[in-house]
Amino acid sequence: MLSPALAELIAALKVLPGVGQKTAQRMAFQLLERQRDGATKLARSLQHAVEVIGHCNECRTLTEDPVCRLCQDPKRQESGLVCIVETPADVLAIEQTSTYQGRYFVLMGHLSPLDGIGPADIGLDKLAERFKLGHINEVILATNPTVEGDATAHYIANMARQYQIRTSRIAHGVPVGGELEFVDQATLGHAFSGRKQFD
Amino acid sequence: MLSPALAELIAALKVLPGVGQKTAQRMAFQLLERQRDGATKLARSLQHAVEVIGHCNECRTLTEDPVCRLCQDPKRQESGLVCIVETPADVLAIEQTSTYQGRYFVLMGHLSPLDGIGPADIGLDKLAERFKLGHINEVILATNPTVEGDATAHYIANMARQYQIRTSRIAHGVPVGGELEFVDQATLGHAFSGRKQFD
Ligand SMILES: [Zn+2]
Ligand SMILES: [Zn+2]
Repeated sequence: MLSPALAELIAALKVLPGVGQKTAQRMAFQLLERQRDGATKLARSLQHAVEVIGHCNECRTLTEDPVCRLCQDPKRQESGLVCIVETPADVLAIEQTSTYQGRYFVLMGHLSPLDGIGPADIGLDKLAERFKLGHINEVILATNPTVEGDATAHYIANMARQYQIRTSRIAHGVPVGGELEFVDQATLGHAFSGRKQFD
Repeated sequence: MLSPALAELIAALKVLPGVGQKTAQRMAFQLLERQRDGATKLARSLQHAVEVIGHCNECRTLTEDPVCRLCQDPKRQESGLVCIVETPADVLAIEQTSTYQGRYFVLMGHLSPLDGIGPADIGLDKLAERFKLGHINEVILATNPTVEGDATAHYIANMARQYQIRTSRIAHGVPVGGELEFVDQATLGHAFSGRKQFD
């Protein structure tokens, strides 16, 4: 009952995360009925992004440059800090806090032996090269507080130790503004074991 | 902190209904990290749809054909039924019930004098031509049960009357499987005033 071009568009929209049949239909109709210019722009941006965006040769984040703007920044190079994160979205989240002025290394995942994802798959050979070059005072481990994220943080901490580089792990605990009774047990456990002197 | 191509893609994704900055970021990262083939396909389908999809010359629904497949169906032509709906999404919803085998006329909106949307803007001149041609036994008014949808239904019913064509309005009431206490007042009012003999 749908024209082929429309059916194809609806099917293609379902590649988007969290978009099922109903939402894809709603999106397709809205784009074609009221947002044709926006739709054309989206098609072009998407095609362009897929064609030009690869990974930064230094930190592996998504970028169309050989080396991303963060890695090119001399202030960040001189900081001697490298923050290890799992995804480019984590870089963005940290950047939006404006509390960190060092460089990043983006794993694009985490160690997961059961899925066959080993150290080389998350760029740890490249990270070891950066450790070897020196100029790093501290490695901040900001992988997710999950079993895999913790295991990956431990693995990288061991690597850093071989080069006498200090490591730290970002703090995990009760979210600021969060209420204790709504925080999950694991987080609350972390909050207690990671408690600090109060002065 | 984002590369220009990535920032542009995220901005472009926000044209999609219900997609804000955070969702657009998540979509962009997922497409580039894990769905590059899907992203390419989406870009092409979108470009293609915008280029080829227009409105059916008979019923105004979205289609790349001069006359859509529903209008081309001889069974539907012989039915003598025309169902008036506001959007192509309504056609799809009705088709999915498999209870209706007639033709459609898609207003692509509703009368809205305050917004300057008059009869010609929703194709009522074209609809009048179809009324004039004859072969229509009944016009089913399936516009939304809103102030504007009701007003539009009344306007079209008056038009049909001039051509001695019977009109009907789809029933509105408590949704099947719905519980009375969770139904809004207007719907419950409709359900009472539209009650039928029970045998
Ligand atoms: Zn970089
Ligand atoms: Zn048609």
